[in-house]
Amino acid sequence: MAQPIEIICVGNELLIGKTLNTNAQWLAKRAKTLGLNTRRITIVGDNVDEISSAVREAIQRNPRFLITTGGLGPTFDDKTLEGIAKALECKLEINEEALKMVKEKYRKYAEEHKMKSELTPPRVKMAKLPEGAKPLFNPIGTAPGVIMEHEDATIVALPGVPSEMKAIFDESVASLLKHVAGDVTFFETNIEVTGVIESEIVPLIDQVMHNNPYVYIKSHPKGAERISRIELHFSTTDKNSGVARKRVSKAFVQLSELIQKKGGKIRPIKTEN
Amino acid sequence: MAQPIEIICVGNELLIGKTLNTNAQWLAKRAKTLGLNTRRITIVGDNVDEISSAVREAIQRNPRFLITTGGLGPTFDDKTLEGIAKALECKLEINEEALKMVKEKYRKYAEEHKMKSELTPPRVKMAKLPEGAKPLFNPIGTAPGVIMEHEDATIVALPGVPSEMKAIFDESVASLLKHVAGDVTFFETNIEVTGVIESEIVPLIDQVMHNNPYVYIKSHPKGAERISRIELHFSTTDKNSGVARKRVSKAFVQLSELIQKKGGKIRPIKTEN
Repeated sequence: MAQPIEIICVGNELLIGKTLNTNAQWLAKRAKTLGLNTRRITIVGDNVDEISSAVREAIQRNPRFLITTGGLGPTFDDKTLEGIAKALECKLEINEEALKMVKEKYRKYAEEHKMKSELTPPRVKMAKLPEGAKPLFNPIGTAPGVIMEHEDATIVALPGVPSEMKAIFDESVASLLKHVAGDVTFFETNIEVTGVIESEIVPLIDQVMHNNPYVYIKSHPKGAERISRIELHFSTTDKNSGVARKRVSKAFVQLSELIQKKGGKIRPIKTEN
Repeated sequence: MAQPIEIICVGNELLIGKTLNTNAQWLAKRAKTLGLNTRRITIVGDNVDEISSAVREAIQRNPRFLITTGGLGPTFDDKTLEGIAKALECKLEINEEALKMVKEKYRKYAEEHKMKSELTPPRVKMAKLPEGAKPLFNPIGTAPGVIMEHEDATIVALPGVPSEMKAIFDESVASLLKHVAGDVTFFETNIEVTGVIESEIVPLIDQVMHNNPYVYIKSHPKGAERISRIELHFSTTDKNSGVARKRVSKAFVQLSELIQKKGGKIRPIKTEN
């Protein structure tokens, strides 16, 4: 059984539809590829109470990892660490290692712009972490990521800027997920079916999934009213990538034959994104 | 105070990062434009227990509307209505009006394809609604949307296929949200700031928001390490659209002046999406 992970995305921009949540998709995909199961994604606004409720509720569901995005910057409404601290009933305190990272960023910036580097309160704010947390170096922006252990969960807070979120994840977080997941491969393939409608292939999917208990097949209707076009997504997870591939192949061949007998047409398609 | 709304998106494809959640963004944007506040978005997989937990928890937070997307189709893993029924402790039962809608869709389809129209179990499944619920006509696909009242909340279940979700929302749901929200306008504007870094403009934003208590200003850093580019998003809500516009203008002028004094450059930009 793959280890569960939860994702919490923080930001009013996500709740007013200003920003499309590409971070959640990217993280969920990376987690899956690394062998973990994202069980829930929660999106809340820049509000300490909302963040702390979401964190507390997630922790109660015992995920192995809880990853947050957004709300680590210098502005008054960057409240993720305050929300995490409130949820875990611990204090925020200046972390010397984080402060050093922030200082160094502004020193470089000031040097390049021939100005004085000041450690103003908004800048110091980015180094105030929950007690016991450690900073994760941000190779692109200023606010460090944050990592801490709480009971059986590892909590990771990443910035909301996608390039910064991805860079910190790949440099400092991916290896931890991989270590916990062990050697697990996620294998997937997609086909497009035309010429039959979804309700006609439902019993065929049931039959093939019954015969192939480790393969998950999901249908996604894509066509408009009169043109039926269904994407079928086959996936499985296994320690052995050869086994995973063969397992999906077998289910794929079985289902393709059944669909063709019903008059459906099949073509393989690229996995989206 | 705008009425709160919650969104729950159901689908394994969202939790493995296969699909980008454009539905949540579209609904959140429409809700905001209609004068409601999306307070939380939750994404869960095709699992009755996960769906029912998410629905139960959302209802406990007393939203005026709870909108779900996904999981209304004919396949075994379309479980949203089962999850809602479980959360509300009611039964699923065949709804005659929904059954008529489903029947009519397949009758037309069979007629066009010169085949016999059968009401197979996967097709009947789409007409099994929670007790007391009503179907919402789906002008594009087959599975009807669903609407029901529970305590002070209106629960709306929409399909996951974006074109169907949007069509049902616009035809049958938008007017209900508008009615509850009353005459409220959401007004927003964006500017791009270069030449200063985010932590430098934090105290300026604080000052302008203090002077303009009904305007919300959020900074979104967009640049890479050495090129600072910050998007500032100004927004407000008011019954009078002229008042809303003037209020944002005033805050915009004040903040622009302060930023320019610091050596920053400003240009208006289009609101994303």
